[in-house]
Amino acid sequence: MFRLALTRLVSTTRISVQSSKVLINYSRCFLRNHSSELNDIKQQPTKIPLASIHQGEASKRMGIQFRCKVCDHTLQKTFTRQSYEHGVVIIRCDSCSNLHLIADNLGWFKDITQNGKFKNIAQMLQAKGETIHRITAVPTDDQSTLEEKTATDKMSTAVCTRLNEIHIEFVLNDHDTFLFDCDGVLWCAPVVLPGAIELLNLLTQLGKRVLFVTNNSLKTQRGFSQWLNEIGYPAKPEQVISTAWITAKYLKSINYKGHCYCIGMESMVEELAREGFHISDGIGPDPVSPETDWIETNTIKFDDQINCVISAFDIHVNYLKIIKAATYLSRPNVLFIATNDDVTTPQNDVAILPGEGTILASIVAASGRSPTILGKPRAPMFDSIRLAFPDVKPNRTIMIGDRLETDILFGNRQGLTTLLVFSGATSEKKLDTVKQSAEKTASDRDLLPKYCIKDVQHLLELIITQTKPSS
Amino acid sequence: MFRLALTRLVSTTRISVQSSKVLINYSRCFLRNHSSELNDIKQQPTKIPLASIHQGEASKRMGIQFRCKVCDHTLQKTFTRQSYEHGVVIIRCDSCSNLHLIADNLGWFKDITQNGKFKNIAQMLQAKGETIHRITAVPTDDQSTLEEKTATDKMSTAVCTRLNEIHIEFVLNDHDTFLFDCDGVLWCAPVVLPGAIELLNLLTQLGKRVLFVTNNSLKTQRGFSQWLNEIGYPAKPEQVISTAWITAKYLKSINYKGHCYCIGMESMVEELAREGFHISDGIGPDPVSPETDWIETNTIKFDDQINCVISAFDIHVNYLKIIKAATYLSRPNVLFIATNDDVTTPQNDVAILPGEGTILASIVAASGRSPTILGKPRAPMFDSIRLAFPDVKPNRTIMIGDRLETDILFGNRQGLTTLLVFSGATSEKKLDTVKQSAEKTASDRDLLPKYCIKDVQHLLELIITQTKPSS
Repeated sequence: MFRLALTRLVSTTRISVQSSKVLINYSRCFLRNHSSELNDIKQQPTKIPLASIHQGEASKRMGIQFRCKVCDHTLQKTFTRQSYEHGVVIIRCDSCSNLHLIADNLGWFKDITQNGKFKNIAQMLQAKGETIHRITAVPTDDQSTLEEKTATDKMSTAVCTRLNEIHIEFVLNDHDTFLFDCDGVLWCAPVVLPGAIELLNLLTQLGKRVLFVTNNSLKTQRGFSQWLNEIGYPAKPEQVISTAWITAKYLKSINYKGHCYCIGMESMVEELAREGFHISDGIGPDPVSPETDWIETNTIKFDDQINCVISAFDIHVNYLKIIKAATYLSRPNVLFIATNDDVTTPQNDVAILPGEGTILASIVAASGRSPTILGKPRAPMFDSIRLAFPDVKPNRTIMIGDRLETDILFGNRQGLTTLLVFSGATSEKKLDTVKQSAEKTASDRDLLPKYCIKDVQHLLELIITQTKPSS
Repeated sequence: MFRLALTRLVSTTRISVQSSKVLINYSRCFLRNHSSELNDIKQQPTKIPLASIHQGEASKRMGIQFRCKVCDHTLQKTFTRQSYEHGVVIIRCDSCSNLHLIADNLGWFKDITQNGKFKNIAQMLQAKGETIHRITAVPTDDQSTLEEKTATDKMSTAVCTRLNEIHIEFVLNDHDTFLFDCDGVLWCAPVVLPGAIELLNLLTQLGKRVLFVTNNSLKTQRGFSQWLNEIGYPAKPEQVISTAWITAKYLKSINYKGHCYCIGMESMVEELAREGFHISDGIGPDPVSPETDWIETNTIKFDDQINCVISAFDIHVNYLKIIKAATYLSRPNVLFIATNDDVTTPQNDVAILPGEGTILASIVAASGRSPTILGKPRAPMFDSIRLAFPDVKPNRTIMIGDRLETDILFGNRQGLTTLLVFSGATSEKKLDTVKQSAEKTASDRDLLPKYCIKDVQHLLELIITQTKPSS
């Protein structure tokens, strides 16, 4: 079977024409982290001289540049418009000899072209929800390139396509690992959302790896998987990727020695203890006497073995805990780790429940220190997943979440496919607002998902339709 | 008596020379807020065409531009180098007819020139701690101006001059109002610093207005003045400008109606009550049960009459208080006020004591709202002083403090003279570091004081020497 792999199609024109139309087309699945991608470009410039194709042939030839999905080699090839529009175009990778199907107007490869439904790579990518950009380039006598345009267009590959029955085939075929955010996606605590358990079970039956990726540090692997079992999904503890767990993994990965001061709850104690780390203070209530109007600092006990301050979610956080955290952080070489920096937790109609990020804001202000943040959208979350499951590949992983600033940003930064559900923190209206601002602000583009869908019930139905045996 | 008033002296040269030396000199006391000053320039361009002076006379003439201290009119005049260097130069204001002494080489005005010690305005300003800039301007055929150079040089008028017996005369003559920060200046709580009480009493005897300007919201006018009386200075309550007091004044000035939610201490209740405002919740302990590991939001009581959230210093701040503040702030049209945003309080060797700014950081993160901040270095602090004492003039007011980011920045922004003492938060080494960074970063220049001195004891000694009758 041929692997489809294309980043852009370039249609060149005679250089005597002042401006030429250039068709650019992307496969999002090639795109890793935008910034690293741009670095790659910098290191290995991939210039397509618009005016360098033999002039007499210019109107009859087309150009393509793409990265081979098998060996990661970048290819630049040209071919005739005649064969692209009426025949078959296959390109062999210079590096690994893999064959890539670019066009098939003759119906030779029906397993790839959905029984001849798609004639070329542009149509196939369009069906997967990619946008086709027609751009204008001005041919010149010197080596004009598409580099800048490439950088800009990469940003716009996340197009918030509404997931439908055509895309779902690609989603299932192209992904082995399904990462689920939990609250707002699978449930709105304590209510499990319709279709959630059925979806998890179906994906597992289909041989997909299902992982629960949550910034909630109140959850331990053990307790959380137990609860999933109770509600009908036979989860194993290792399927739970919580910030309590990755904190322990992170400390282990840096070979940390010493005690920890942790503003957090009991879950942190349990996960850190499993990796041999000791939290000597900070968990649970540490009350300030209601009678006092000043804190006598010489009555506070400090542990000299503490070389690490961890900021996690804690409903017992108070002024005394911030004093202790800031004081430990004023010592030389004391590590500063935060589970995440979400400023809100899933909301209800009665009150705003501040998230771990609001506690972290206090400690940062008091200490003047910057923490290493582990949870979504930061990289350590995905590093931990890859450490636990070395065969996880970013381009075959999909992140399903309800928050643009954590789930979707995390997925985009790590080069995953992203799917937003509207059952949680993000309404369709909010997504529209971010889409509009992303047109002006490049950094907002990373907040946009590749796909979106109403909820997991709709996702379940699409998968059922796709996977049921055809009559 | 003539009033001295000068902003710059310009020495022009023949235009046939490619570059000419231009002497620029400032009197800091003319400078208000930098930004408003720059706006003034924009509205009323004060261009000195370097090449417009009669060419044959260029080498023999000098130019001056200054703002009349009496009527605020801007004057531009030229005079001969001969009279500036060997005779007497007096300029009459075009607007108010006031006379300004520019040079006196003949000893006619000994009361102004310290018995003939100073020959001209440049020497007099230098003695006051101003720097003399020799700049290079390139004369051209068109109307070249000094505007840009002026803007840059205004930034560098704060020069951290070490206060000595020459400057002290100007400090005493030019200032009616002395604003004192307290902790780190007059005392390092609970120890009153040597010379502090004597200094306050001496200034009062000399007819100066002494005000205590503190971001500490734990202090009420009544309690604080009482304490000052106990340690030997007969303060009246109205001399105390604390953030608790200005919060009440601010609410009154905007004609606020409704209850307040205030994260703060009892001092806030007392000051707000004096102006008729009611804090219905937030003061004192509001404990989270030590038994619980979650907060049931439907058990929290909210007051529908609260239309204002105030963030002040509070040792009883906890997660529940942040929930309440953030929830009130999610309501439409609820005001958000903060007493100040200092992230630390005066420190001791045992522990870091986080300041009100660390509590504020939490509320801002949880609510996504930006507060109106009242304390130093913000303008409302000075607005309140002027409301209480309408005759206070910025150019006759000196701010004495120990913190660059609050006291000195506040003074510079409000157009006050600034004096830093090294007895508190700022060491000489830290000042040097900020001076270095100010050379690169324009915004840091506002952190630099005009004068500095070791402590109030040294200030007291200088004033005693200056004011004792000469034998």
